[in-house]
Amino acid sequence: MSDEGRSLLECPAPRAPRRIVLGHGGGGSLMHALIDGLFRPALGNPLLDRRHDGAVLDLPPGRVALTTDSYVVRPLEFPGGDIGRLAVCGTVNDLAMCGARPICLSAGFILEEGLDTELLARISESMGRTAQALGVPIATGDTKVVDRGAGDGVFVNTTGVGVLEHELEIGPEAIRPGDAILLSGDVGRHGAAILASRESLGLELALESDCAPLWEPVAALLDAGLPLHCLRDLTRGGLATGLVELARDARLAIVAEEAAIPAVEPVRGLCELLGLDPLYVANEGRFVCVLPESCADEALAILQRIPVSAGAVRIGRIAEGPAGRTTLRSPIGGERVLRLHSGEQLPRIC
Amino acid sequence: MSDEGRSLLECPAPRAPRRIVLGHGGGGSLMHALIDGLFRPALGNPLLDRRHDGAVLDLPPGRVALTTDSYVVRPLEFPGGDIGRLAVCGTVNDLAMCGARPICLSAGFILEEGLDTELLARISESMGRTAQALGVPIATGDTKVVDRGAGDGVFVNTTGVGVLEHELEIGPEAIRPGDAILLSGDVGRHGAAILASRESLGLELALESDCAPLWEPVAALLDAGLPLHCLRDLTRGGLATGLVELARDARLAIVAEEAAIPAVEPVRGLCELLGLDPLYVANEGRFVCVLPESCADEALAILQRIPVSAGAVRIGRIAEGPAGRTTLRSPIGGERVLRLHSGEQLPRIC
Repeated sequence: MSDEGRSLLECPAPRAPRRIVLGHGGGGSLMHALIDGLFRPALGNPLLDRRHDGAVLDLPPGRVALTTDSYVVRPLEFPGGDIGRLAVCGTVNDLAMCGARPICLSAGFILEEGLDTELLARISESMGRTAQALGVPIATGDTKVVDRGAGDGVFVNTTGVGVLEHELEIGPEAIRPGDAILLSGDVGRHGAAILASRESLGLELALESDCAPLWEPVAALLDAGLPLHCLRDLTRGGLATGLVELARDARLAIVAEEAAIPAVEPVRGLCELLGLDPLYVANEGRFVCVLPESCADEALAILQRIPVSAGAVRIGRIAEGPAGRTTLRSPIGGERVLRLHSGEQLPRIC
Repeated sequence: MSDEGRSLLECPAPRAPRRIVLGHGGGGSLMHALIDGLFRPALGNPLLDRRHDGAVLDLPPGRVALTTDSYVVRPLEFPGGDIGRLAVCGTVNDLAMCGARPICLSAGFILEEGLDTELLARISESMGRTAQALGVPIATGDTKVVDRGAGDGVFVNTTGVGVLEHELEIGPEAIRPGDAILLSGDVGRHGAAILASRESLGLELALESDCAPLWEPVAALLDAGLPLHCLRDLTRGGLATGLVELARDARLAIVAEEAAIPAVEPVRGLCELLGLDPLYVANEGRFVCVLPESCADEALAILQRIPVSAGAVRIGRIAEGPAGRTTLRSPIGGERVLRLHSGEQLPRIC
């Protein structure tokens, strides 16, 4: 008997309905049951258990970083991850890109009436597992429910608080001519995995999203005392968009070597089939690090010792100008200027 | 000629399309144009202008409060407010209820393909105006776009960071038997205004939402050195749900006087017409304050001097038990036990 058949025959417990209804967002007993029966077991920790409208934290000393992202990825579960894991990794990674140790997250859920509560439980448990493995508690949360057709299953917002335990000013304005550009691994896996998993394509590839937290490699670089100039994770728009934005915001030029940029064969094959450029395909576990050339070898060695960045490579350097230009050099000496696309090639990849 | 007719005839500038398209969430040039052309003018401030994936803050000393809320109110504009103003007030109020001075907000937008950009501009400007009046900058943001039918115009998440500049432990666990319960004004206006403005009802009432920031009265109570025990804003589920939750979490009893609870005539009339109980109707600018009886008169006088809480009244007291019970006493001596409803009487009021 199929799972679907079995659950239809079982009599659901009154406190755990199979589908989300509007009342689950209404602030009454149904919402409390959802929080106590589903979210708290999945996400619970002493901060969240305090049951107040907000969390009160004792932060370690240092400047504080704040970053927010809403996640609308479709499908909600994909090879290598799901919206819950993505919502933790994505926001933790944005903190890491500020050079900030992640301290805690908030989680805001927008649920669509009719959502399968078992799916919601799986997503929440994945979120809780990912957060717990990182030691980053979900400190406070919120649940809203919209009527059927006014949402799409689950949207999640996570907002992250981190602390900068160093004096570096990490950002595009710190980039200097001559800096080396390191890339933490192969590109395009998240976007390609999402694309391959969309039902309408029906492709089966040995391909998983790279969705992973990036604080460990960043912490290792900081712990080594390396003078990092800029960090950027390569999500929507991929590596190419990340580089173009850095060149624009730093008002300097970037020269990257095409042959140095790794991509696994299933990503290259899928992109070729569909006419996509893997350099513009989204990642959720890759970043570039810009730092003085004199420190590049040490940084590369550190990154390569850590599993999530074991495939780190040097891909290029910062040049004086022309300001804002990003050039890709081909192995046979050709040059291609990278530009911002109008938008991500695939909608709703994160 | 109607506004609609005029804008249809005008040729839109290429950087300001009349409707949101999926590419506006894609991380490319369309998204940058939306941010630079619409969000930045509406919400801009030095923190947001830094164009990095997160904001870096120097917080004043003190414990830090974090709170999050997603806003899915329908309609997006209503008498007395809109989703932008609500998203600032609601989250600032959650910080205030922790006794925390609001420092900054993040803003995450989930837009539906086809959304009118003029409506989005109005909402963003309202958000910016409300935040600026409070001196609480939008420090960092995020924009996602979902396909038509997978969202509902605009959803907004705001997450707030605040600082506790005192040593009080404000929360249900600090409530003591004998404490007085103050209510900051008349109840039910937000929910009633939303209900009246829903097109299908076609009612026209002289009724505006009470949507307003509550930090000023809380700051005044704290500045006076009053030993506040608990603060609770009365959003989804209204005053009744707020009281029931406080009694449950404090494991004490609440006795409230029905005759002491103010509600304006249009709210009472609409509730009577529709069979609703104004005590369960949502507010967005009202709170209860629980504090020692000996300080109640002073607190009441402070609240009554501030416009947003000028209608403050004493509505009841905390009793030993039965633990978790909230009783409403009628003017003629009857008693009614208040309970959690299964959900808000009206969906999507915030």
